[in-house]
Amino acid sequence: MKITAFTVDGVPMIQKGDDLGAIVASLAKIEDDDIVVFAHTIVSKAEGRRYSLDGIVPTQRAVELAGLNNEDPRFIQHVLTNSTKVLMKRPLLVQTVWGNVCINAGTDRSNTESGHILSLPENPDASARRIRDRILELTGKRVAVIITDTNGRSFREGQIGVTVGCAGISALHDKRGDKDLFGHELKITIQAIADEVAACANMLMGEADEGTPIAIIRGYQYTKDDNGIKPSFRADGTDLVKQALLEKVARDEKTPVKDIVSYREPSPDIYS
Amino acid sequence: MKITAFTVDGVPMIQKGDDLGAIVASLAKIEDDDIVVFAHTIVSKAEGRRYSLDGIVPTQRAVELAGLNNEDPRFIQHVLTNSTKVLMKRPLLVQTVWGNVCINAGTDRSNTESGHILSLPENPDASARRIRDRILELTGKRVAVIITDTNGRSFREGQIGVTVGCAGISALHDKRGDKDLFGHELKITIQAIADEVAACANMLMGEADEGTPIAIIRGYQYTKDDNGIKPSFRADGTDLVKQALLEKVARDEKTPVKDIVSYREPSPDIYS
Repeated sequence: MKITAFTVDGVPMIQKGDDLGAIVASLAKIEDDDIVVFAHTIVSKAEGRRYSLDGIVPTQRAVELAGLNNEDPRFIQHVLTNSTKVLMKRPLLVQTVWGNVCINAGTDRSNTESGHILSLPENPDASARRIRDRILELTGKRVAVIITDTNGRSFREGQIGVTVGCAGISALHDKRGDKDLFGHELKITIQAIADEVAACANMLMGEADEGTPIAIIRGYQYTKDDNGIKPSFRADGTDLVKQALLEKVARDEKTPVKDIVSYREPSPDIYS
Repeated sequence: MKITAFTVDGVPMIQKGDDLGAIVASLAKIEDDDIVVFAHTIVSKAEGRRYSLDGIVPTQRAVELAGLNNEDPRFIQHVLTNSTKVLMKRPLLVQTVWGNVCINAGTDRSNTESGHILSLPENPDASARRIRDRILELTGKRVAVIITDTNGRSFREGQIGVTVGCAGISALHDKRGDKDLFGHELKITIQAIADEVAACANMLMGEADEGTPIAIIRGYQYTKDDNGIKPSFRADGTDLVKQALLEKVARDEKTPVKDIVSYREPSPDIYS
């Protein structure tokens, strides 16, 4: 198999309301079965997920966690409002309302104006479907779309690109039942295709001032579905790492695990 | 940036003693700065890291963990012999003697003959350097070499390609101090380049009967050093996930954490 992967040059600064499908269609010659990969930052900006810290009133809980992390309490409040579980207090590792697990609920302060923060899209799988449909409408080309963030990992330093939302590509390739080179059945092998594509795209996109938030992977043979990335988030009861982390927070706070599992504030009117 | 990535066709079944540098040089036209990626299975086979289960005598500890995992006690014994810490008992997540964290110490039963198992190379960074040097010797081309395995992840289903050893490429790209699009300094951003390359290569190599254990990434601009992957394994004292898992095992076994941190058996003569 041979693929090519390239960044799309000339992407402008994205504003709320921008049409990302139209932008990529105008900058690149899209082909059928391309995988078009977007850094979540520009999807978030286009969807108006940028907030001013000025409008946020932190709770006491946010003030405590902000002190622990040497962070702005309003920033931490925003993280908590977008989270359902705190898995680690420092750094602040949470399960987001969307369901993925990441530091600070994926809230970004880089690549945005001072005093402003940027959340993940509210439903990144739906965002990916919308952009995919728009590209089809404009170009007649049927593509897959992946929206990425960068996440740290357990046991290893450094961040890699991961998928926060996708459309038109099966996130997981279930190979259980396939045979190996010697004809034995593979015991457990589920390949996380969408995340491998996200890592590949992030190699090219970088994260700092490169300003290349769109990449295209061409020539890859992938399975198609519209289930998105969400089904690949491990369910709570089956996630032993999550359970161990929750138990550690609970011991630290001398409270039962059941009281740890939701820190979500009752959504006060904290945003102007 | 634009890259191409392709699998190398025609790789034969690898035997102990095979010269992987010569094999890839004969099958592909290598260019300067290519990243040549090898699935660890063929490196392990070439280095004679294949063992017969027949020669292994399990300890009581291995028998217990084998029962818990519905596994062959001799297989589990081999895993324990190649591990320094048990972070989870089922599935058997360990820190290997090499230092990476993975299920079953990366020991492979697929893609090898019945009754045989395959370990990771003893020092995959050194293996990568040797292959890199051999390619230079044979072709005059200065490349980077990455040796991959596939690992599961916390919080997400499915496995992705990761680097277990590398040479000629900086595993981590430290961007702290770089500026974002708005000129702000990035707070913490270390990009795990080698693992992103491994994920990209694994997209192409697959894991079952594809039989394509070598891939080449061409056109990628990367930083070069010979530090290998080992420095990117999180140090014990700074790894909160590892600590939470060790504490959970210790509670389960009603023993202090310090007694959990080494299950390594005193290396008996269990291999024929």
